[in-house]
Amino acid sequence: MKLQLALDTVSLTEARRIVDELQDLIDIVEIGTPCIFREGVNAVREIKKAHPGLEVLADLKIMDAGDYEARLAYDAGADIVTVLGVATDVTIRRVVQAAQDCRKQVLVDMIAVKHIEERAVHIDTMGVDYICVHTAFDLQEHKNPLDDLKRLSSLVQQAKVAVAGGIDAQMLKNIVPYAPDIIIVGGAITKQSEQRNAALEIREIMP
Amino acid sequence: MKLQLALDTVSLTEARRIVDELQDLIDIVEIGTPCIFREGVNAVREIKKAHPGLEVLADLKIMDAGDYEARLAYDAGADIVTVLGVATDVTIRRVVQAAQDCRKQVLVDMIAVKHIEERAVHIDTMGVDYICVHTAFDLQEHKNPLDDLKRLSSLVQQAKVAVAGGIDAQMLKNIVPYAPDIIIVGGAITKQSEQRNAALEIREIMP
Repeated sequence: MKLQLALDTVSLTEARRIVDELQDLIDIVEIGTPCIFREGVNAVREIKKAHPGLEVLADLKIMDAGDYEARLAYDAGADIVTVLGVATDVTIRRVVQAAQDCRKQVLVDMIAVKHIEERAVHIDTMGVDYICVHTAFDLQEHKNPLDDLKRLSSLVQQAKVAVAGGIDAQMLKNIVPYAPDIIIVGGAITKQSEQRNAALEIREIMP
Repeated sequence: MKLQLALDTVSLTEARRIVDELQDLIDIVEIGTPCIFREGVNAVREIKKAHPGLEVLADLKIMDAGDYEARLAYDAGADIVTVLGVATDVTIRRVVQAAQDCRKQVLVDMIAVKHIEERAVHIDTMGVDYICVHTAFDLQEHKNPLDDLKRLSSLVQQAKVAVAGGIDAQMLKNIVPYAPDIIIVGGAITKQSEQRNAALEIREIMP
């Protein structure tokens, strides 16, 4: 079980400081969508250059032009790029092909997918590396990713499973029994005053 | 009927040169998603600063964190930001609210929306400025936006209608009778050796 740290609303300078401080506690650094919007894929390049031993995920949430956009991230040093589960099959397949060409990986973000079980089973046949159960930030007041994780964890056979969406230490205790391959945590670490203690607490709950 | 020039795969330097050359022929400059990924919203800032008289659209294709991400683009100088029609209603509403707070505009990109008529009628009640019929780049070998435009142009009552997806001069002749408010053209101008002539040809077909 890997820990992915999502860096969304922090500046690139702050992101670098956080990753420096927590590098021994995390497996994957996520350059979040807002960070990409602010900095471009240069943020991916900077973090990968500073921490070549960590995996870096570029959360582009690709919706179209799968080949072109995935290569932008891979060329900048990303190990994993995200494509949306609501994108067309052609777009997902083009991201998968780009990943194979570049010897990199693909995570499909199932955010806002309707009929999520049916869609996950289909996407699971497409050669993607990860399928990510993800409750939108905009819905987290009313919902968490646990229900979808329960539904998908046994259905997804080929891909690994990731889970995201407002995960904190308390929620993580309920998630661990479903054994996802990646736990994605953002604000429960980055928005705490004692970030290293928060990351340690998360890490201790993980098997 | 406005002409929106989509700048996707060109560098920021090349984008500036193209906008300088075509400024009198276009109404809206679109900083395309790949350009945002390469440059961040700095590309929006640069183009708006160089051409304050043109509208600038930031094609973020927002899928979550509607308030935060829309403000990133508006703060950089964007007049219009895009949100995906496949995003949740909450996310679309938060982008609309941010737009109203900032006195800016919202375009909903209907790319890959299933049951597009039903969804467009619903989104049309949400206070968005534009609903955009958009055939994905990854599908343009087999499909164009004309069929969806025919279906939506009479259904959408409150919002204005935009159309995108591989539009060239030939296709434009079939689009004009449906009187969309914005015609979005990218490669049919930017990928031509004589870009000004290509833009003039497009402009002459528009009423």
